Amino acid sequence: MIIELKRGVSRVLAEAISLKYAAVILNNYNGRLIIVTSGKLKENELDESVRQLAERVVITGSDIQLASRKFLTSKREIRITDDLTIGGNSQNTLVITGPCSVESEKQIRACAELCVQLGIKVLRAGAYKPRTSPYSFQGLEIKGLQLLDKIRSDYGLKIITEVKDGSHAEAVIEYADIIQIGAKAMYDHSILRACGKARKPVLLKRGFGSNLQEFVQAAEFILCGGNEQVILCERGIRTFENFTRFTLDLCGVSWLKENVNLPIVIDPSHAMGFAYGVPDLSRAAVAMGIDGLLIETHPNPAAALSDPAQQLTFDQFKELYGTLADVAKAIGYKIV
Amino acid sequence: MIIELKRGVSRVLAEAISLKYAAVILNNYNGRLIIVTSGKLKENELDESVRQLAERVVITGSDIQLASRKFLTSKREIRITDDLTIGGNSQNTLVITGPCSVESEKQIRACAELCVQLGIKVLRAGAYKPRTSPYSFQGLEIKGLQLLDKIRSDYGLKIITEVKDGSHAEAVIEYADIIQIGAKAMYDHSILRACGKARKPVLLKRGFGSNLQEFVQAAEFILCGGNEQVILCERGIRTFENFTRFTLDLCGVSWLKENVNLPIVIDPSHAMGFAYGVPDLSRAAVAMGIDGLLIETHPNPAAALSDPAQQLTFDQFKELYGTLADVAKAIGYKIV
Amino acid sequence: MIIELKRGVSRVLAEAISLKYAAVILNNYNGRLIIVTSGKLKENELDESVRQLAERVVITGSDIQLASRKFLTSKREIRITDDLTIGGNSQNTLVITGPCSVESEKQIRACAELCVQLGIKVLRAGAYKPRTSPYSFQGLEIKGLQLLDKIRSDYGLKIITEVKDGSHAEAVIEYADIIQIGAKAMYDHSILRACGKARKPVLLKRGFGSNLQEFVQAAEFILCGGNEQVILCERGIRTFENFTRFTLDLCGVSWLKENVNLPIVIDPSHAMGFAYGVPDLSRAAVAMGIDGLLIETHPNPAAALSDPAQQLTFDQFKELYGTLADVAKAIGYKIV
Amino acid sequence: MIIELKRGVSRVLAEAISLKYAAVILNNYNGRLIIVTSGKLKENELDESVRQLAERVVITGSDIQLASRKFLTSKREIRITDDLTIGGNSQNTLVITGPCSVESEKQIRACAELCVQLGIKVLRAGAYKPRTSPYSFQGLEIKGLQLLDKIRSDYGLKIITEVKDGSHAEAVIEYADIIQIGAKAMYDHSILRACGKARKPVLLKRGFGSNLQEFVQAAEFILCGGNEQVILCERGIRTFENFTRFTLDLCGVSWLKENVNLPIVIDPSHAMGFAYGVPDLSRAAVAMGIDGLLIETHPNPAAALSDPAQQLTFDQFKELYGTLADVAKAIGYKIV
Repeated sequence: MIIELKRGVSRVLAEAISLKYAAVILNNYNGRLIIVTSGKLKENELDESVRQLAERVVITGSDIQLASRKFLTSKREIRITDDLTIGGNSQNTLVITGPCSVESEKQIRACAELCVQLGIKVLRAGAYKPRTSPYSFQGLEIKGLQLLDKIRSDYGLKIITEVKDGSHAEAVIEYADIIQIGAKAMYDHSILRACGKARKPVLLKRGFGSNLQEFVQAAEFILCGGNEQVILCERGIRTFENFTRFTLDLCGVSWLKENVNLPIVIDPSHAMGFAYGVPDLSRAAVAMGIDGLLIETHPNPAAALSDPAQQLTFDQFKELYGTLADVAKAIGYKIV
Repeated sequence: MIIELKRGVSRVLAEAISLKYAAVILNNYNGRLIIVTSGKLKENELDESVRQLAERVVITGSDIQLASRKFLTSKREIRITDDLTIGGNSQNTLVITGPCSVESEKQIRACAELCVQLGIKVLRAGAYKPRTSPYSFQGLEIKGLQLLDKIRSDYGLKIITEVKDGSHAEAVIEYADIIQIGAKAMYDHSILRACGKARKPVLLKRGFGSNLQEFVQAAEFILCGGNEQVILCERGIRTFENFTRFTLDLCGVSWLKENVNLPIVIDPSHAMGFAYGVPDLSRAAVAMGIDGLLIETHPNPAAALSDPAQQLTFDQFKELYGTLADVAKAIGYKIV
Repeated sequence: MIIELKRGVSRVLAEAISLKYAAVILNNYNGRLIIVTSGKLKENELDESVRQLAERVVITGSDIQLASRKFLTSKREIRITDDLTIGGNSQNTLVITGPCSVESEKQIRACAELCVQLGIKVLRAGAYKPRTSPYSFQGLEIKGLQLLDKIRSDYGLKIITEVKDGSHAEAVIEYADIIQIGAKAMYDHSILRACGKARKPVLLKRGFGSNLQEFVQAAEFILCGGNEQVILCERGIRTFENFTRFTLDLCGVSWLKENVNLPIVIDPSHAMGFAYGVPDLSRAAVAMGIDGLLIETHPNPAAALSDPAQQLTFDQFKELYGTLADVAKAIGYKIV
Repeated sequence: MIIELKRGVSRVLAEAISLKYAAVILNNYNGRLIIVTSGKLKENELDESVRQLAERVVITGSDIQLASRKFLTSKREIRITDDLTIGGNSQNTLVITGPCSVESEKQIRACAELCVQLGIKVLRAGAYKPRTSPYSFQGLEIKGLQLLDKIRSDYGLKIITEVKDGSHAEAVIEYADIIQIGAKAMYDHSILRACGKARKPVLLKRGFGSNLQEFVQAAEFILCGGNEQVILCERGIRTFENFTRFTLDLCGVSWLKENVNLPIVIDPSHAMGFAYGVPDLSRAAVAMGIDGLLIETHPNPAAALSDPAQQLTFDQFKELYGTLADVAKAIGYKIV
């Protein structure tokens, strides 16, 4: 239950109420205080004296609360650069590209130049890699972040990079323009809570074994921490089909668009796991009216230290990129 | 292994070879005879004398053989009406619509009129319904087929209708212009073999628990029976996510496009299970460059005797339909 | 809703009621007539005049009705031989074994002798094989059934054999002592309805993509056809884990034991797909207190024409079989 | 590839080799040094000079290396108390019980008394709870650990408690006798690496969306960190079946027993999600010959702050516990 207090109700009173209901308290857009209790609290369990302090009481029927369209009917807008937003009424689809991992200055510089050449604003690259084996390349770690920092200054790009576990959450939060929470870290409360305190956009990837309820509840951890800039990213779920790496869940994206007030980015590269399917899936994603697209590219995918099969060459990416504007336009969107 | 015999090799000799390898024999486009052995037969197990009779030996590495791009590199073309094909180089996306079930003459006539009004050529409707409960509406059965026959004459539409089990396979094969094999009947050999002998297009739906290998092997049953007019239909697979009815597997569609020579139709209605997601998913499907789209519509979905939640109203369908041409055009396709 | 009519209510009246509610009518144990309506019919939609004719009205809350413990609180008992039953209060676990397919008289005779030697009463073997590829061995078909008939007379064994599609349902129903409905045929109404009219036990395998609701509803087709001798068989569901062929769903078996009144048999061979896991899984199954176990054995698994990896050798089976009695005894059951 | 160096090869030389192959180095049982390279390294890529320093080179064919039966053919033995081990040849099945969460001193003391009464050696209880919602009870955190510490002294029990994210890994490693890594933290490298340095047994739960390869590779992170005391815990995977909370993967347990040298514990409570199924599943687990069983009990499950549906009452647990010895004995194991 979300209790939106009337303007003027004091913070002390709000804190008393939130203690009583084991609830979370936070500030709202309009200067009003908001109290969020467990979704299980029934309307008739709310004391009449509290109700009288409320401007509005929202019952969402589950712990999807601040992210629910029942709370905010319109999609949240998130600022990416000074003159660019996604979500809201922008009808923008932001294309983000770059390699799976930062591997070397030469490699990441080549990717940055590709972005500049095409007018792409946000570069992706991982410094900490959530590899499933201890015997694989694990990322350049802090050196990777420093390289990304240099690239940012040199090329004027925004950087999105991933946090995979709590040990480097602070470092990633400091260095990134958009903090990416990796699929395998989706349930990590220490990361979610740290991002809740950050004042930067957070792109939260859906765990491949996570249902939509859990996915959006992970976003609630960030939202109720006070950070409203949360972007959801669908990147494929694990199913019985193993001819492809994962199964991109566009039915799930439809559900999110209908029920959740957060912008949505789609990552076809990890879902498919093979470069050949990425162009078609990217166009499918754009045709759904989404807020962003995350595509892996590499100057030489065959030599990549992680995910070699799914990264596009620069030529493949340019060809794909050239086709997206028309698809976006067909549904009233713009590629940005 | 596919052994394409040289022109002039006699049928008697071909039969002898097919007996030796427990293989299937069939006629090819070019008048050549083709022998298909188990995919497990290794190249070095083929007798030299047989090889000398072969124009070409194709090793596909699995029992996806006649359907493989290794056998036919280009996509097969299938005739829908005298002046309309899908697949091949047509770049056509065929829109098929109609109700889940034929319920009454009035209802199906309304749907046919919608098709005529919009220029849609193929009407879908089920006479035999594969309901999972014995206590639900099971379809009008033969009376439903007869109604569809009447509608065909009255409106000049092509009819696609579903066979759900062997007891009525002959009836459906006789009445339908395009025979639909339902998802729950995908493994039914008696239906697959009967369709292999038919001389009509067959739309084979993927079982929701079937992987891509099994799905295409089911098509092989029809192809090796001598019917080359097979269309594959992705309609959602069953996954852990249950906020939507099924999960539309567009990664799987990418795999099929890359590896299989059959046209592909997508059914977003069954995948999603809810009308609200059908428009976005339809546009996503069209943007992938597919050969057809199967969408459920009903004059009054709330009163439908089956699948009420997922059928579009006529107004919803018209609005959706109006947006598809632009999406198709953006990728060089046409809605037909 | 199940309406158990008072003794003496006429069949004509019952038929009138069943017409009104689009319901199914059948005879009960105690000579009473039973009407089964859709599970969606609400209690307040039942006319008062009908209620007065009812001895009992059972609301199960879904279309699991005749199979529900809400209808029959105790487990049904099914006769296997003149002096042997399973289910009810028998505390019997019936071991069934034999090869995947009947391949030759020599092979099936060897299996029959193994049964006789160990005191096993029921031999399994498939004559019609639901292979997923048209280029694999498809079974001996009617000749296989005739061989099984001969074996039955020669060795005094009961025979369980599988129907995979409608084309041979009548033949299997005629030849089998226990009719097995294969996992891929679980939704086949023509088979289910034919079995509903049969007067023999039916072992219904769960489709590997089928949830428990659909599984038990398939049994309802048989039960409401008038055949009360239905046995459910869990044989593994399809999940993302592919190091094993399927995933044996023993949580599902717990749910069935709690909610459904039908005996349950477990098939660890198909679930695991590899012989090495069958002994442990068999003991696990027995320790759950189930009504039967279906295990594949073959005189020479490596040479088997189907499922070579999962069939046990006779020695492996004997060793396993020798351990089952103690496990059964530990929980108060007997191996029969 | 595992390179077991000859006795006497110096650490300096070993380090040089491990640098060359981007490998991990560690000490072995027998005082020999072991180098573990990526599983992708092919045998012919190993320099002859290195091979000559090797006592043994083990190729496991994947990154399951130190955990593989190809490296150690027998199951590892792990000490639980001074006079109790599991694994190895002990044929012991360790029963662990306790509540989902430490909620209060009274509650946890009651559980400890139950353990003492039944002779159970290890108490489970979570202080940090990986809840999926921010609006639910999150555990007593450090106070919970302190309570468990007190209970340990007062009752002489060993304590197993869970780490859910990196922020409290050190605290749990310090307080626990057996460190439990929660299913949602299975991929967390910071936790895995911290546990690799610990000198205490670690119980690693399988992520519910994780396949067996990833599960065992997570254990490799701990093993290659130098901690050999790793126990695997199967607790159910997420599948399409949602009548139960998860699906207990006993086929997967069979695979692990065959291929992996680590002891295995089964947690039926989380798999089932409902108390009614726990007794049957516990007996099934014991009958497989496993090394431990993890069962949730609570003095008053209905009032539990987390997982109320799946915790057993003390009476239910006692009844279950009383039946386990016979099942274990039937297969030559003992309940400890």
